[in-house]
Amino acid sequence: MAKTIGILGGMGPLATADLFRKITLLTKADCDNAHIRVYIDSNAQIPDRTAAILSGGPDPLPQMQSALRNLERCGASCIVMPCNTAHWFLPALQAMTDVPFLSMPGVTAEACAQRFPGGTAAILATKGTLASGIYDMALRGQNVPFLKPDAGEQDVLMHLIYDVVKASRPLAPELETWRALLDGLRARGADYFILGCTELPIVSAALDVPGPFIDPTEMLARAAIRFCGYETV
Amino acid sequence: MAKTIGILGGMGPLATADLFRKITLLTKADCDNAHIRVYIDSNAQIPDRTAAILSGGPDPLPQMQSALRNLERCGASCIVMPCNTAHWFLPALQAMTDVPFLSMPGVTAEACAQRFPGGTAAILATKGTLASGIYDMALRGQNVPFLKPDAGEQDVLMHLIYDVVKASRPLAPELETWRALLDGLRARGADYFILGCTELPIVSAALDVPGPFIDPTEMLARAAIRFCGYETV
Repeated sequence: MAKTIGILGGMGPLATADLFRKITLLTKADCDNAHIRVYIDSNAQIPDRTAAILSGGPDPLPQMQSALRNLERCGASCIVMPCNTAHWFLPALQAMTDVPFLSMPGVTAEACAQRFPGGTAAILATKGTLASGIYDMALRGQNVPFLKPDAGEQDVLMHLIYDVVKASRPLAPELETWRALLDGLRARGADYFILGCTELPIVSAALDVPGPFIDPTEMLARAAIRFCGYETV
Repeated sequence: MAKTIGILGGMGPLATADLFRKITLLTKADCDNAHIRVYIDSNAQIPDRTAAILSGGPDPLPQMQSALRNLERCGASCIVMPCNTAHWFLPALQAMTDVPFLSMPGVTAEACAQRFPGGTAAILATKGTLASGIYDMALRGQNVPFLKPDAGEQDVLMHLIYDVVKASRPLAPELETWRALLDGLRARGADYFILGCTELPIVSAALDVPGPFIDPTEMLARAAIRFCGYETV
């Protein structure tokens, strides 16, 4: 029985579409039937993860569980979540199912160690992800040096993620904001940047500012393809 | 209970990702929770539709039904198929379920009548779609004049669809092939072009040749958003 991928999505919808597209483009395939079967529940009703972690917002777990059950019933062989902040809830979700989750911070930390040995990563992420320490733990597990944005830089990241990408606003006017953010982190010692919120690969693809970057959405796509026993390009 | 969209996908996977992305980008939404819940089964195991219609290839219905059942169990309020040729099988699929299908050729023909009144459409599509007459019927129903590619032009279309997009090959070398195809149809009386295979919006987005075009994937996205009671942008 061929293995399949379940995408627990909707966090946000555009990031979910981005992961699905990357899985498709990164699978070595010369016709439709050479691709992996992918199930997606893009559940736009999942409450905001950062608000739940930091400020007592509604618990996202019930709506995440609803999507998980749909993917299980479809027969998904593994589950991936195109939302870094959502990984705070991964242990609770994994306890609800025998279907293995692939961890985005986990596969990203492995890629950092391989691609930038000894280099210092800057973690670009939501306040929820940064406060939860999910990337800290994953990077420490791979002995990857890292730094985090300061309070002002975190405000800039939240603006780009919430006020622009999630708000369906144009990215072009944000070019200098994005450039200044990266320059500031570089001046403080960053050698490369982890695009640790799934809205940020959408920002970096739209705004031409040099990294180098690690794209956790791409790393998760590659890990899911390998899990299913397919080759990546 | 909010309405949801089920995408019976995998025909092909990149076209499925394209429809999902268009639904997301065309929904008027200022945050994740303002989007529509979307279920996708991108079933890469569905046999080729053109081969089934024209040359006795394997019947795609059992694998299409497998995806339909998954989308039903998730609770989809409507079903859309990002594959024009697959619409040959729509009556058989609709007979299997009470969940309404939205027809891509149907909504496209309505858009043609509204946007290009009196103009002649050229139907760009697979040999399976062209032979099946699904667009002819939809366009006649809206009194839209149309012409079809000749045998040589159909070979060019099959090349772009199967040997390039579905084969994950680069599009850039196909620029002059695409331009010559459109110029030839324009010389024979086409006023605009229906991108009547879901791989073709991917071709036209990558190769900058003027149309005007009607994109059935976009029309289907807009129809699904309206069906769910959401506003489009």
